[in-house]
Formats: sequence, structure tokens, C-alpha cells
Amino acid sequence: MVASALAIRLKEKGHSVGLLDLDFTSPSSHVILGIEGLYPEEEYGIIPPLAHGLRYMSITYYSQDEPAPLRGADTSNAIIEILAVTLWGNLDYLIVDMPPGIGDATLDMIRLIKRILFLVVSTPSKVAYETVRKQIKLLHELDISTIGVVENMVMKPTTYVSERAGEDNTAYLGAINYDPTLEDALGCVELLKKTEFYGSIVDLTEKVG
Amino acid sequence: MVASALAIRLKEKGHSVGLLDLDFTSPSSHVILGIEGLYPEEEYGIIPPLAHGLRYMSITYYSQDEPAPLRGADTSNAIIEILAVTLWGNLDYLIVDMPPGIGDATLDMIRLIKRILFLVVSTPSKVAYETVRKQIKLLHELDISTIGVVENMVMKPTTYVSERAGEDNTAYLGAINYDPTLEDALGCVELLKKTEFYGSIVDLTEKVG
Repeated sequence: MVASALAIRLKEKGHSVGLLDLDFTSPSSHVILGIEGLYPEEEYGIIPPLAHGLRYMSITYYSQDEPAPLRGADTSNAIIEILAVTLWGNLDYLIVDMPPGIGDATLDMIRLIKRILFLVVSTPSKVAYETVRKQIKLLHELDISTIGVVENMVMKPTTYVSERAGEDNTAYLGAINYDPTLEDALGCVELLKKTEFYGSIVDLTEKVG
Repeated sequence: MVASALAIRLKEKGHSVGLLDLDFTSPSSHVILGIEGLYPEEEYGIIPPLAHGLRYMSITYYSQDEPAPLRGADTSNAIIEILAVTLWGNLDYLIVDMPPGIGDATLDMIRLIKRILFLVVSTPSKVAYETVRKQIKLLHELDISTIGVVENMVMKPTTYVSERAGEDNTAYLGAINYDPTLEDALGCVELLKKTEFYGSIVDLTEKVG
């Protein structure tokens, strides 16, 4: 949700943006942005379709939204193929939606993309932050840049995540309130833009430049 | 959360229960149940410690809660090792907490455990159910038994998930309301048992027998 809205916002601000959904666990940007009937074209490579002005690519194009139980090695091969053949054109930003936690996809992206920046998304729950913390530790150990942590789905303000982010030497980028209207905006970018959630994404992009 | 509470409830009902946390994405049962300072013992195999009366094993014992970025093949090896060496004793139930979606861990468990039953947990969101649906489809295709779908973190009642479960020929086992008191119960089983969430798990175990 954060990746999709961020891509839409950066495009709205006049940037040239690509969105790549590599969330093997749960690819959902096509549901969130209502992308149907748009397919990549082949011409000396794969040209991603323009969806809401974004160059759009998703692993669902490889799995046709069928159950796609990819083994680790297949995940790596799929990522390498997508990165090798996709003709993104000139982009200011390529937003990549990654699966939660640390797995093959994350390790591959770190290995394959030299100029990568991580935006880490947590929920307010201790349980979620414990996972996020491991990811932050790993990124620090690998000397990979992190923009910071965003706290999503906040029901009531707490200081747990912001304090932990401080301990973990990571910028706390702010809270995004749980927005019950978001579910009804799924599939429609115009409705998405009117949500409180999107307002928080607008603030976030201002904050991180 | 569902797996941990389910194990506690089955134990409370007098069953002999093991809990195995294989959620490589986000192992958290030790945080939820407040399991600290308990470790497996080695004696012709690995004997899981008794935690709240449960035989308890977690992949965090293999990663020491450090960032453990396991590649797919390593995931398989870790699972095979845990299943091979752990001496569970006589159990009525072994509850296994799995990562979300379909990945190496799920495929391995299907391959390695003959008498496996899946309890599928979704949230009310379309986006979550889309992922769950793929998992259900795969389980059907592989002829693996599914107990049904539980809808967790329900903020306001909707019929979306129950209707989809019907379309997917899967039992809808009911809704578990979002329970804001759950966060403060993390780490303390006695508090957990007093939550509305735990009450829903009690109902669930009665329903599925």
C-alpha cells in the first residue's frame, strides 16, 4: 500500500516513476491501483505498460495471478530475468514493493541493484517491529542505506516504534494512521488520493525529499 | 498470534501439544508467549523445552534472534533438520506457525508431513484475501486438507471474506475482532487468556473440534 501510493505521489509531483511489484508473498499493487487488462509489450526486451502514468511491472505477469509457489532459486531467477529484460526508459525513481522480512528477494535486490535505498515499513506492534529490527540490523551490517522507518496502521499514538528506531540508529519518518476508508478505495486511484492515508504519503514524500 | 493462542487453548483443554514456529518471515511466538531463557536440550536428539506446558521449538533457536537471512535452500535444510532431530514425545497436536503466502517453508511442510491440516488466516482486506485465495487454490490442487479460513483483525463486520471462502469451497470459520488490548498482553499468557481475542480462539477450537 505504501509503495503503490508513494509511486502515485512521486508521479503526481512530476517525476518519471516505475513501480515494480516483487512481493512474492503477496503481490497486490494491481489490486490497489486497479490495474487490469494492461500487459507488457515485447520489443527487444519487455516494455512495461503505463498505468496511471507509471511504468508498471509485477511478478503477477509471470504467474498470471495463479498460485505461483516459487522455490528460492526460482525467485532469484525470476528477479534476475525481470531486471535484465525490462526496458524502464528514463526513470527518476523505481519503487519496488518487497515482501516482508528478509528473504531471497531482498538478498537478491541488494546484490543486483547498486543504488538501492530501503524504506522500512512497520506496524505499531512489538511483534512487527521485532521483524523490522532484524531487517534494519542486516541492512546496517551490509552497509546498505536506509531512508528510515514508517509506522503504518496506527490506531492510537504510541512511542514504541519511534523509540526503537532511535535505538537502532534509524530515522523515524512518522506515523500513518489506520484509515478505514482505504478498503473502499482499493482499485481506484482517484478515491485513493482522497484518503487520509494518501495525505500521510504526501507528507512523507515532502519529508524525505 | 492465532497459532500461539490455539496451542495454549488446546493445552488448556488437556491435550498434549507442541508449538513449532517456522515463520521465517517473522518468528514471533516467543514474543507473544514471553518465552525467554528456555532452550532445547540435546540427548540423542533435541528435546524442546516445556513452555506454558507446551513442547516449544522455534527457528529463532537456530538464528539466536539475530538477522537470519536464509536462502530458500537453507530454509529447506533448516526445516528438514528441525523435523528430523526434534523429539516431540507423544503429542495430540503439533501446531506449526507458518510464514504468510506460499513459499519454500509451506512447500516443504506439505512434502515432509503426511498428516498435515491447514488453518488459513486472513484479514478482512481484499488485498490479504487475494493472497490467501492463491494458497487455498494450491492446497486444493495438491489435495491437501484445509480446516477452513479464519478472518482475523476484523474492525467492522463485512461479508467479503466469508463470501469468497464459499466461492473457494472452503469453510469460513468465523471472525476474530481486532482487539486493542492484545498488544499489552504480549509476553504474558495470563493476560492473553483474558483478552477478547483469546475468547474467539476458544470459540474456534470448539467449532473445529
